[in-house]
This record gives sequence, C-alpha cells and structure tokens, in this order.
Amino acid sequence: MTPPGILSGMRVVEAAAFVAAPLGGMTLAQMGADVIRIDPLAGGLDHHRWPVTEEGTSLFWCGLNKSKRSVALDLQSPQGREIAMALACAPGENAGLFLTNFPPRGWLDPDKLRARRPDLIQLTLQGDRHGGSAVDYTVNARLGVPYFTGEPGIEGAVNHVLPAWDLVTGQMVAVGLLAAERHRRLTGEGQHVKLALQDVGLAVMNHLGFLEEARRGRPRERHGNELFGAFGRDFTTADGERVMVVGLTAKMWRTLCEALGIQAQVDALGAELGLDLGQEGHRFRARRELAALVAPRIAGRTLADLAATFDRLGVCWGRYQDVAQLVRDDPECSPANPMFSTIEQAGVGPMLAAGLPLDFSARARLPAAPAPRLGQHTEEVLHELLGIDAAAFGRLHDQGVVAQRGG
Amino acid sequence: MTPPGILSGMRVVEAAAFVAAPLGGMTLAQMGADVIRIDPLAGGLDHHRWPVTEEGTSLFWCGLNKSKRSVALDLQSPQGREIAMALACAPGENAGLFLTNFPPRGWLDPDKLRARRPDLIQLTLQGDRHGGSAVDYTVNARLGVPYFTGEPGIEGAVNHVLPAWDLVTGQMVAVGLLAAERHRRLTGEGQHVKLALQDVGLAVMNHLGFLEEARRGRPRERHGNELFGAFGRDFTTADGERVMVVGLTAKMWRTLCEALGIQAQVDALGAELGLDLGQEGHRFRARRELAALVAPRIAGRTLADLAATFDRLGVCWGRYQDVAQLVRDDPECSPANPMFSTIEQAGVGPMLAAGLPLDFSARARLPAAPAPRLGQHTEEVLHELLGIDAAAFGRLHDQGVVAQRGG
Repeated sequence: MTPPGILSGMRVVEAAAFVAAPLGGMTLAQMGADVIRIDPLAGGLDHHRWPVTEEGTSLFWCGLNKSKRSVALDLQSPQGREIAMALACAPGENAGLFLTNFPPRGWLDPDKLRARRPDLIQLTLQGDRHGGSAVDYTVNARLGVPYFTGEPGIEGAVNHVLPAWDLVTGQMVAVGLLAAERHRRLTGEGQHVKLALQDVGLAVMNHLGFLEEARRGRPRERHGNELFGAFGRDFTTADGERVMVVGLTAKMWRTLCEALGIQAQVDALGAELGLDLGQEGHRFRARRELAALVAPRIAGRTLADLAATFDRLGVCWGRYQDVAQLVRDDPECSPANPMFSTIEQAGVGPMLAAGLPLDFSARARLPAAPAPRLGQHTEEVLHELLGIDAAAFGRLHDQGVVAQRGG
Repeated sequence: MTPPGILSGMRVVEAAAFVAAPLGGMTLAQMGADVIRIDPLAGGLDHHRWPVTEEGTSLFWCGLNKSKRSVALDLQSPQGREIAMALACAPGENAGLFLTNFPPRGWLDPDKLRARRPDLIQLTLQGDRHGGSAVDYTVNARLGVPYFTGEPGIEGAVNHVLPAWDLVTGQMVAVGLLAAERHRRLTGEGQHVKLALQDVGLAVMNHLGFLEEARRGRPRERHGNELFGAFGRDFTTADGERVMVVGLTAKMWRTLCEALGIQAQVDALGAELGLDLGQEGHRFRARRELAALVAPRIAGRTLADLAATFDRLGVCWGRYQDVAQLVRDDPECSPANPMFSTIEQAGVGPMLAAGLPLDFSARARLPAAPAPRLGQHTEEVLHELLGIDAAAFGRLHDQGVVAQRGG
C-alpha cells in the first residue's frame, strides 16, 4: 500500500502525449495524486517514442508516466468518448481536474465538459496560443537560442538536445492546476486554464534579459562554454578530465583564486587592465586573461587533487561526465540518493527510477512507482469512478470499446 | 489598482538570488500573490548580474523580480535579521510562506522560524542535496548533456546557454509552495520543503530515458541538430533562411511529405531500405536518406513560399531567427501577444515585459508589472506586516537597519 503523499486524495485525468503535459501530470502523481492517463487502444502518439528497449518498449513513455494509472479506450467510438468525458467529469470534491495537450475540440471541448461538471478545472496546453503546431525544437529555433549556442565563429545553428521548453512548461502545467484547484477550493469555481509552449519560451527570453539587450542593439553573442557576465568555463586537468569552474559570486571567485593560488596574479592583472576584478562584469571583460591564469594551474593537477582542494574550500565547480559515467560511477545517480529507487518496470525489467525532487517534511518521501502497462487500470478505474460492473465491462470489451478485462 | 489574480491574498516572503528561486517567487507574484523579496541594503548577490544597461541596471534582476515588493535590510545586524524573521513569520491565514536559496542557517534556520510560526511553510532550495555549491552550469556538466550536444565528431563539451535546470527548478519551487499550502489548508500543518537543483537535473535525465539507455550500453550520442528517434532537423531555403522541420507524429510526417511532394520517393526509399517509414524510429534510421530528399526541395523554395504551404497544410516547422529578429519582427514577441505589455521599469525605461504564460479563465490576465527598486517597499511593508510606524521606522533608519524612508 502506497503511503500518503502531499497531494493524496486529489484526482487528475490526463489525455496527453509527449513531454510537457505528461510531465505535469507525473509531477502531481509523484506527490500522491491519483493521475489517470487516458489513451487510445493502440497507445498515444508517444507510445513508441525513442529511446526504446531492444524489444521496443519506450523508455521515454515509461519515464514520463510513472505513478499514473492507465485507461485505454477506443476514442474513435462515441461510447469510448462518452466514457472519457465521464471520467474527466467524475464526481469527487478533490477530482474534476483535467489535463490535455490536444486541441480543445470534440470530447475535449471545455464547454461540453463544463456542462457536465460546472466546477471542472481543465488545463489545455497548446503549441502556440493560436492552436498551431509547435514543438520544443521549432519554438527554440524561433527564439534564437541556437544562434548563440556553441563556439564563437561557428556558422549556423546549434539545437539544444534537452527539451528545455517542454520541461519548464511541464512544471508550469502543475503550477496551473494547483493554482486553479486552490481557487476552486476558496470559491467553488472551476475554469479553463490555457497555456502555450511558445509563450513559455517567449516569457523566459524576457525574464532573463535576452529581449531587452537585443532591443538595445547588443544581442547575445556566442560565448562558447563561457558563463556570460562573470567568470566561468571548462578547463582540462593533468589527467585529461574536464571541469567546469564558476566564479560568479564574490565568494565563489575568492575561493577559486585561493584554490589555485592566483590571487596575487589576479590583483596584478586587474591593475594592469584598469579593472576591478572583484566585480563580476569586470571578470567577464577580462575572461581571456583570467583563463590564461587559470588554465595552466588546472592543467598541472589531477582531477583527484583538484577535487580535494576545491571541495575543502567550497569552490563552485563540476566535473564533466558522460552519461555512461554518470550511470556507472556517480553515487548521486543511484539508490544512495533517496530520490532514486530500483523499480520493476513492465516491459523493461529492473531499472533505476527517480521520484520527485521535492522533499516535503510533512510526508515521508514517496518512492518512484513504475509506469503502468497500457490500459492496465481500465476495468478498475471504470468500476471505481463510473460504477461500471464486470458484466457491463464485458459488454464494452465485446464491442471493442476497451481492450481486455483487467488490463 | 491591480485587479485580483488567481492567487490574490496569498503572501510569500522571499530571501533568494539568481534564477531558480526568484523565478519561483515571480511565478506566484504574476498570479497575484504578494511576494516580498528581502535583500541586503546593497542588494543581493544577483543585483548586478549581467546583462546590464549602459548605466549598470541589471536587466536580469529586473526580469526575474517583476511584480514583487522589495524590502532592504542590514542583514548583518541583529535588528535587521529580527525584522526579516518577523516578516517571514508575520501572521495571516494566507501568509506564512517563505522561500530561500540560502543555506538554512542563522535567521534562515527552519526550526527557529517555525518556533515563531508553527504553521510556517519554508521552501529551501540548494545546489546539491548535501548543501554543497552547485549552479546550473556545474550541474549540467555532471549530467553529461554537454557531451551529446552539437555536431557528431566534434571534440569536447558544448554547454547550454539557457540555464534549463534553473528554469525547471524555478517552476518546481512554485509547485512545492502551492502543494504545501494546499496541505496546510487541509490540515493546518506547516512544513519545510527541500529541493536541490542537482536532483532536478538527475530526475529529468531519468524521466527522459537518458539514464536507462546508457545503462543498456547505448548512451546518447551527438546527433547535431537532428531530432532523436524520428525525423527532424534544420534546412536552408532558397533565400538563405534556416527552418526546423519536424516529422514526429504520423500526421506531422504526412503533412511534411505532402508539402514537399515527396511521398512517392519516401515510399520507394522505404521499400529499398526495408523500412516502414510510417514508423518514427524507422524515419530516424533513414534520416540521412530522408534529409537528402528533403534538402533540395527546401533549398529550391523561398521562405515565404514554404511558409505559405507549410501553414496551409499544418506542417510542424519553425523559422530560425536570431534574437534581434525576434525582437524586431515577430508579432508574437510584442504587445500584439496579450502576454506582453510595455512597462516603465525603474532604471531601464520603457521596456517590453512578459506576464505569466498561464491564462486562467476565472480571472482577467494580469499585465506584467515592473520589478521594484531595491528597498522601494521597506517602509510600507514594515508598517503593514509588523505595525512599525513612521517614528520607529525613522529610528531604524538612523541606526542603519533600513536604507531610507519610503524606499
């Protein structure tokens, strides 16, 4: 039996695919909410999304649907759509939360759904605010980030490989549902919450100052691996390892200089250049000269030697690892970190799985739970939420509306 | 007078710096919460963070602290710290929410604060879960992302320029506070919520399948600008523009083939290669051959011509722009998009500012409001929350605990 989480009792119905919306649902599920994902009988648009196992099970799907229940329905049939609507609008003071990233038409039309349950909270995520098709990678191109990623002087675009906009949007989906649920608790009022992936990207570009610096005629340029506006970049150690060192705050900078024994040289450099290298912006101006001081001191020491000094002094640094090293060698990426546990994932086998990074003192941390098999909970959910008994479920099965008894 | 937002009435006190925690606070502020940021008299660690205006005002700080109130105190003095603690714990059913990304010691010690207000909700964000120093760029190095970003065959690391982990964590800060506030509303119980930037990164690496594919001996490789696991990449048009086209879902792929008139060639290619190019994974396997079909058809048409066809058919695509173009030419990045408005920002002047991407039907969308001047609301907040009158405020000023009357 699962112990209660911080959101235990809350129920969310999700009809969604890919990263952002399913991640929003999973975030709530990993806090203990009962999140029921509805899919077509053959699986949603993301059911085969790579990476996949040798046998074709999607690690992507399993990763983004942990801790949920799965209902599979023939959504092409009127009966299947009727059941989906009934699930979204099923009674319960802590239910009536519905999440989708499909066009809000047909059975997903918020007006139709709210006619069934006036206090329904529906969150609809779209690519752009007009309902157009947009995914992380097209949004990122439009925002200009690929043109200031990578080494100075290179031609063309460098796409990110982490779907950052999807990830931010996924958390914002959870924010939107929680804020709307609070409002309903206080007022009784449901609502339709709209969110567009592209708007999330545009807002962040504004928040970080990218838009205003461009408007002022100084658009961000490529700075390779350098931290903009202060001192920070990658260096190579005597044993060929790569480290990222950061001198952003005054303390970070002081400890880095101390660890490398370069304070006197830095002071002399500042005097020579007429810069106050205690100021982060001046460090950025002098970044090449500073790197010339730092590089040989890192190149002359092994990673182990540097790590001991850096950690003793509290330097802000990180070792570059590839993902193979991360998985193999890093104790933070193992069950030694209480966020992780080893689960038995259907279609995959035993695998490392992450629970929620948030740790609430009022509740024991929930361990990660596997993603469901497609349709695993159809009979159970239709019985619980809609009172559909075994005989009625059998008829739905015979009609092809549900796939099989018991999942 | 500001119209009510979805969180109007909620009050959050924030003692934080840089991206993640201030973004979490701002997300709540842009939903109408009263978010009071406490800073030292000379400004926080991020007060001069680049980008800055010619006069040195931080566009970064202004961007991440919109819609907040600012209190500046001498936090080195016992009196200043006493006031800060009193603010965090000030009474009010919808208050008692405190957010920090500083070490939870001294006046930020959750035990001390909860002794004053037992139902306090404190969220403490740290670099790693042990309290060590880590920032987005060091976390990203550790996670391995820089080793699979960029063109195949290049050496070394490609750092991201968008602090993706900070951005995701910032939204998760808002999630954590809202979930804890819900719990308190239902049970009366406060708590300490902990979150580590590094854990957010590790969790996402798990969710997206990166860890498990590496454990299976197939760590993600560099694929340049190609979308992993399906078809998608950048191409150049006849007029030298760059577009990102995506054939992820069956519909996206079909419309792309139709727009370029390549369905027959694609069918022939599939037969030749023995692949079912209707499957996304097979498209990834045949990505080079497919790109050879797509490239000349895009290279032979102008952007305007392609855009008309793509939009008519609903192709999933995006134009690459640099940020200067985005700011100058894109109507979505202007007040024509209701998320944006032009504000008068102290120290900056009139500037474009983004409100919250979430649009709640139960409340009119709140326009973006400027960031405060440092200490702008000190007198007003100390009066409102702590009943400190003008005479007492004058004494605090004379003692150097606050900077000036009226901000």
